[in-house]
Amino acid sequence: MDIIVLTPSATEEDIRHIIKKLAGKGLKANISSGTERTIIGVIGDTSKVSEDEENAIRAIDCVETVMRILKPYKLASRDFKKEDTLIDIKGNVIGGNRIHVMAGPCAVEKKPIFVNIAKKVKESGATFIRGGAFKPRTSPYTFQGLGEEGLQILAEAREATGLPVVTELMDPRDIEVVARYSDIIQIGARNMQNFRLLLEVGEMKKPVLLKRGLSATIKEWLMAAEYIMSRGNLDVILCERGIRTFETATRNTLDLSAIPVLKHLTHLPVMVDPSHGVGKWGLVIPMARAAIAAGADGLVIEVHTNPEEALSDGEQSLRPDVFKQLMDEIGLIAGAMGRRGHGQDSLRMQK
Amino acid sequence: MDIIVLTPSATEEDIRHIIKKLAGKGLKANISSGTERTIIGVIGDTSKVSEDEENAIRAIDCVETVMRILKPYKLASRDFKKEDTLIDIKGNVIGGNRIHVMAGPCAVEKKPIFVNIAKKVKESGATFIRGGAFKPRTSPYTFQGLGEEGLQILAEAREATGLPVVTELMDPRDIEVVARYSDIIQIGARNMQNFRLLLEVGEMKKPVLLKRGLSATIKEWLMAAEYIMSRGNLDVILCERGIRTFETATRNTLDLSAIPVLKHLTHLPVMVDPSHGVGKWGLVIPMARAAIAAGADGLVIEVHTNPEEALSDGEQSLRPDVFKQLMDEIGLIAGAMGRRGHGQDSLRMQK
Amino acid sequence: MDIIVLTPSATEEDIRHIIKKLAGKGLKANISSGTERTIIGVIGDTSKVSEDEENAIRAIDCVETVMRILKPYKLASRDFKKEDTLIDIKGNVIGGNRIHVMAGPCAVEKKPIFVNIAKKVKESGATFIRGGAFKPRTSPYTFQGLGEEGLQILAEAREATGLPVVTELMDPRDIEVVARYSDIIQIGARNMQNFRLLLEVGEMKKPVLLKRGLSATIKEWLMAAEYIMSRGNLDVILCERGIRTFETATRNTLDLSAIPVLKHLTHLPVMVDPSHGVGKWGLVIPMARAAIAAGADGLVIEVHTNPEEALSDGEQSLRPDVFKQLMDEIGLIAGAMGRRGHGQDSLRMQK
Amino acid sequence: MDIIVLTPSATEEDIRHIIKKLAGKGLKANISSGTERTIIGVIGDTSKVSEDEENAIRAIDCVETVMRILKPYKLASRDFKKEDTLIDIKGNVIGGNRIHVMAGPCAVEKKPIFVNIAKKVKESGATFIRGGAFKPRTSPYTFQGLGEEGLQILAEAREATGLPVVTELMDPRDIEVVARYSDIIQIGARNMQNFRLLLEVGEMKKPVLLKRGLSATIKEWLMAAEYIMSRGNLDVILCERGIRTFETATRNTLDLSAIPVLKHLTHLPVMVDPSHGVGKWGLVIPMARAAIAAGADGLVIEVHTNPEEALSDGEQSLRPDVFKQLMDEIGLIAGAMGRRGHGQDSLRMQK
Repeated sequence: MDIIVLTPSATEEDIRHIIKKLAGKGLKANISSGTERTIIGVIGDTSKVSEDEENAIRAIDCVETVMRILKPYKLASRDFKKEDTLIDIKGNVIGGNRIHVMAGPCAVEKKPIFVNIAKKVKESGATFIRGGAFKPRTSPYTFQGLGEEGLQILAEAREATGLPVVTELMDPRDIEVVARYSDIIQIGARNMQNFRLLLEVGEMKKPVLLKRGLSATIKEWLMAAEYIMSRGNLDVILCERGIRTFETATRNTLDLSAIPVLKHLTHLPVMVDPSHGVGKWGLVIPMARAAIAAGADGLVIEVHTNPEEALSDGEQSLRPDVFKQLMDEIGLIAGAMGRRGHGQDSLRMQK
Repeated sequence: MDIIVLTPSATEEDIRHIIKKLAGKGLKANISSGTERTIIGVIGDTSKVSEDEENAIRAIDCVETVMRILKPYKLASRDFKKEDTLIDIKGNVIGGNRIHVMAGPCAVEKKPIFVNIAKKVKESGATFIRGGAFKPRTSPYTFQGLGEEGLQILAEAREATGLPVVTELMDPRDIEVVARYSDIIQIGARNMQNFRLLLEVGEMKKPVLLKRGLSATIKEWLMAAEYIMSRGNLDVILCERGIRTFETATRNTLDLSAIPVLKHLTHLPVMVDPSHGVGKWGLVIPMARAAIAAGADGLVIEVHTNPEEALSDGEQSLRPDVFKQLMDEIGLIAGAMGRRGHGQDSLRMQK
Repeated sequence: MDIIVLTPSATEEDIRHIIKKLAGKGLKANISSGTERTIIGVIGDTSKVSEDEENAIRAIDCVETVMRILKPYKLASRDFKKEDTLIDIKGNVIGGNRIHVMAGPCAVEKKPIFVNIAKKVKESGATFIRGGAFKPRTSPYTFQGLGEEGLQILAEAREATGLPVVTELMDPRDIEVVARYSDIIQIGARNMQNFRLLLEVGEMKKPVLLKRGLSATIKEWLMAAEYIMSRGNLDVILCERGIRTFETATRNTLDLSAIPVLKHLTHLPVMVDPSHGVGKWGLVIPMARAAIAAGADGLVIEVHTNPEEALSDGEQSLRPDVFKQLMDEIGLIAGAMGRRGHGQDSLRMQK
Repeated sequence: MDIIVLTPSATEEDIRHIIKKLAGKGLKANISSGTERTIIGVIGDTSKVSEDEENAIRAIDCVETVMRILKPYKLASRDFKKEDTLIDIKGNVIGGNRIHVMAGPCAVEKKPIFVNIAKKVKESGATFIRGGAFKPRTSPYTFQGLGEEGLQILAEAREATGLPVVTELMDPRDIEVVARYSDIIQIGARNMQNFRLLLEVGEMKKPVLLKRGLSATIKEWLMAAEYIMSRGNLDVILCERGIRTFETATRNTLDLSAIPVLKHLTHLPVMVDPSHGVGKWGLVIPMARAAIAAGADGLVIEVHTNPEEALSDGEQSLRPDVFKQLMDEIGLIAGAMGRRGHGQDSLRMQK
C-alpha cells in the first residue's frame, strides 16, 4: 500500500493516466479527493513495485510526492522474522544473552606483538581477536596493511589463543584468501555501499560484520544487510561505529540510539565499536558501558600493548590494563541488565 | 600562546607587519621558518586577544590560518576549577554521587492532571518536577503554554509533593515571574544562543538548566555557559538533548559521547534528556540507561498519565508505569556504576 | 487530508478507537486495509488539527506513523498567494526584477569610518546599508556592538547617502529603539526560532529580513516567517546565510538550492548572505554570482575599508575595490538572467 | 612544520621523551613554554611523517593535540602545480575556457532509446554522453544496469554522434571492459573511498571523473584524487554532486562553495552534477546556472526523452526541450563570465 499525492492542479485526465499506469502493474487505486489535494492509495502487492518504478511515478508532472508505507528491506526485517538471529561461531553465540567483545589492534602487527596482544585480551575476557590485514586508509602514503602475511599472523594468534578472528575484506578479488583465514568477515564503513563486495560476501558461508557507513541512514544500512542476505548468507552482524556530524570534539558521533531502533526493526545482532566512534582512548570506556546499557550485543575494541608504536590508530587504542578495566565495568553493566559479560563466564563454564 | 600560519608568498615585510601588530597588543612573536611555510608563535597573555582581534589577523592577506591553543571559556573550564561543581537545590545535590531525575509532562497541564502526574513521578523516585508554562513551538498556531497560570500550577504541585520544580524561560521580560515560581530556570535548546537571555539569568541567584542547541558544538555550548557564569551565576547544569544530523529514524541524534567529553572539559554537572533526544517513548528507556552508563548526573524525562490527551509531545511521553520501570532500570545501572539511584534512596534516608 | 498508518498488530477495536477520536474533531476516516498494514485517510478540514493533536495520535499504541499532506504554513505559502510579494522600501522594491545589495561592515563602526564605508558602497551600486548595533557574539568577552549609539550612526549614514538601513534586533525590549532608526529589521540566524521576538516584529509595520537558522530546515524557516505574518506583518524577506554541515573548509555550507525550493514554496523574496555563508572574503564573489544565477532577489555583503581593523568579522569583509568588482560581476550575471543589477540602474534612472 | 600542544601537566621528562621521538625521525623541536601550555614546533621535513606516526604521537599521554600545517595531498595541490590542469579528450578540453556538458540518462537504456537521447543532447550542445551500464543501487531488488550490453550501446551512441562517453566503474574486476568502451571512467560517490578501485584507475591512461562522496570533506576528496594520481594517472576531474545534510527538501545539499575552495586548493578541473545534487528536475536549471556562475568547468546532467519510463532516476531527468533551455541559459551565464558555452561554439568552429 503506497500513497501518491497529486498537485493542486492535477486534472481528471491526470488521475486516469495514473490509474492506467497502476493497472499496468496489476495494482488498483483508491481515490480520496480532499479540498486541497487528491490522494491515491495504491492497493495490491506494492512490494513488487521497484524503487525505479516509484521514481518514474514521481517524474509524472501532476505528482507532488509518493510515500512508501512498506519497508524496502524484507529478509532483514523484524516483520519477516520475529525471533532474534543467533550466530554461532565456534561455540560463541552472538545475539544471545552473552555479551561478546572483539579486541585487538587496528592493524595486524608483526607476529610476536600481535600474538602477545591476543593473549592479553583473552586473559581479560575478549572472545574474538580483531586486526586488519588490508587497511582502508585516507592517504595513499600511509601503511596499507600487511596483506596475506597479516592474515597468517591472525591465524597464528587464533591457534595460540583459541579465539576466532575477525578481519576486513576490501576487494572482491581478496575474498578467497580472507575467507580462508578468518572466522568473521568485516565490511568496513567505507564499503558499506560497495554493492559488489556485499553480493560477494552474500555468496559465502561466513558471518559478516557489517559496519555502518559514515553517513548511512539506518534504512540504508539495513538495505546493505539485505544485499548480503538476498544472496543466501543470513548471518549478518550490524556494527555501529559513529556517524559524521558537525561536532568535531569526537572523531565521529556514536549513534547509540541506533541500537534500540535496530532492535525494533530487525532480528539481526547489533554490536558497537566505540574506538572508531569517538577516536580517543579516554572516551572509550564510558561509551562502551553506554553501548551495553543501550542494549548492544557486544563491542569491538582497539587494544594495543604500546599505542605510541601502533602501526595505525594509536590514539584510540587502549592499553591492556585499561582494557581489563573496561571488561570489568561492562561486566557490571551487563549484570545489571541481566546479561552475561565475561565475569559471569566461569559460571557458564561450570554448567 | 596562539599560532599564525603564513601563506607561502608571505614576505619579510609581511612578517614585520604582523610582529608590529602583536607588539601593539603587548605580545611577542616566535618565528619558525620552515621550508614551505613560516609560522609565528604568539607569546604572552593571548587570553586578552579577543575573537574579533583574532579574526582581524585572519583578514591580513599573508595569513593562511590562525590557530587558537587556549580554550575560549574560562570559568566553565576544568582548567580553572578542578573539582566537580555541586549544586544544592533544597537538599537535592546535582553533580554528586546521587543520580537525579526531573520528570513531568512537556507542557504544564490543567491542575488536577498535573498534580496527579507530579505525585506519580515522586512515587517512582523522581526528585524534581518539570513542565513548561511558556512553550517554544514551531508553529504559531499550536498551544503556546498556560503562561503564569501554568507557573502557579507548578508551584501547587511543588507544595503537594515537596519536589522542587524546573521550568523554561523564553523571554527576558518574563524573568521575574518565572524566577518567582521556579527552583531551576531552564534555557531551551532554541535559546542556547539567545545571549540577552543568558546574561539575564546570569544576574539571577537561581540554578540554570542549559540545554544544548540543536546544532551547537560542545565548545559553543560551554561558551553559552560562560555567558551565564560571566555575570556571576556559577550554578549551570548542562543538558544534552540530541543534535540535528542526517538521520531521521529518531527525532534528533542523542550525543552521549558529549558526556565524557564534558566531564573532561568542565566541572559543571551534565544531565540528559532522552525524551527530546529520540522523540519516541519506546526508545526512552534504553537511552536513559545508556546516559547513566556514560556518566550523566541525571535525566530529564517526559511523563504523562494519558499521552493521547497530552497538550504537547504526547508521542514521546512515558506512562507512569513505564516511568517506574525506567527508574528501576536506571537504579540498577547506577548501582553498577557505584552511584546512587532511587532504589538506594531509602538507605540514604535511614542514615 | 492526513494519513495514519497502523502497526500490523492493530485490531478492529483500535481502528474504531481512532475513528471515534477523529469524529470528535469533526473528521471522517477512509479505511484501506492492505495485506500488511491498515491505512486511515483522514477526510475533512485537517488544517484545524494542531501539531499537538497530531502528536497525540502518534502516541496511540497501534499507530505506526502519521503523515501530514498539507503544509504547516499558510500565509507564507505559494498556494495561498500565487504572485511574488514585492516589498517597497522608500522606492527600492525587493522581490521584483531589480537585484538589491545590502552592504556595510558586520558591526557599526565609529561614525567617520562607517559613513565613509556607506558612501563607498553607494558609489558601487549598493541600495541599502547594513551594520549591527546589537551583535550576537559566541563569547561574552567580545565586542557586543555600540548599542543605541550605533543606531544613531546608522541614521547619520542614511542621511549622508540616502540609502535605507537594515540592522539586527536581538531582544524584544529593544524593539522600539531599533524600529525608530532602521528601515528593515533583521532577525539573525540564532534568533530564527526566538518565537517571542518573531511575534513582536509581527506587530510592527516594518519589513523584516529573516535569516535562516544554522540548522533550520526550509520548512522550519517558513514556519518562522509564518509566526511573523500571523500577527499581521506580511513584509518578510528570507535570507539564506549557510547551514551547518560536517564540512569545515567553509564557515558554513551556503545552501543555494534553498533559493529555487523557496521560489516554488513561497511568494516571499529571497536574499543571500554569502559573507557569513563562506566566512572568507576570497570566496564571496563566486558565491555572490552563483546566488544571483540561482535566482536570488539580492545579496547581503560585508564590506570594510580596513578589514584588519574591523570591530567584527574582518576575515570575511570585502575591501571597497573588491566590492566594486563584485557589483560589476553580479551586474553581468543579472543581465544574463534578464534582471537589473546596478549597471542597468542608470538606464532606469533616465526613464 | 607541525605543532604539538602538550597538556598542562606535561613534565620536563615528557618533553624530552617527545624530543627523542622526533629525533628518531630526523626532526628537531622548537619548544615554546607559555604560561598555560608548552608547544613544540616540529622542524624538518614533516611531509615524511605519516598519518600513523602522527596518531602515535597523539597517543602519548602528555599530548593534548597535534596540528598539521602541511596539506596531506601533494600531486593534487595547487602548491605543487600552479597552472590549471587541462584534460584533452578527443579534442574536448576540460578545465579550460570552454564549459563542457555531459548529458544522458542515469542508466543506459535499450539501444534505440539511448541513441535517440544521445542525438538530442548533442543537438542542444552537450559535448559528452553519459549513462551507467553498472549501477550502484541502494536496493538489491532494483535494476542493476545492463552490464556489458550497456557498454556496447554507449559505444554505438558514440559512433552515431561523435561524442565521447563517460560511464561508471564499480568493481576492479570490470576495469578492462569499462576502459575498452569508455572515454572517461567515472568513480561514483559511494566508491570515492574504495581505495582499491582508485589505485586501479590510477594505473590506467584514461581520464577519471571522481565524484565527491556523500559525506566526504574536501580534504578527503582531494586525498582520493591523490590516490589515483599517486599511481601515475594525473587526469582527474572532480565532480561535486551534493553532500548529505539535515535538509530533506532536496535529495542532497549541493555544495557550490566547494568550487571556489577547490579552485584555490587544486589545479584539477571541477564539474558539478546538479541532477543528483537536488534530485528533482524542476530545480536542475537554476542550480546548473549557479554552478557555472560559481566557476565550475562543466556540468553532468541527466536527460531522458520519457522520464516516466526511465529505467532509473526518472524524477530528476530533464526532457530534451528542458535540457535545451538549460543549455541556452548556461550559455548566457558562461558568456557573462567570459567563458564559452555551447552558443559560442559555432564561433569557435569557424576559427
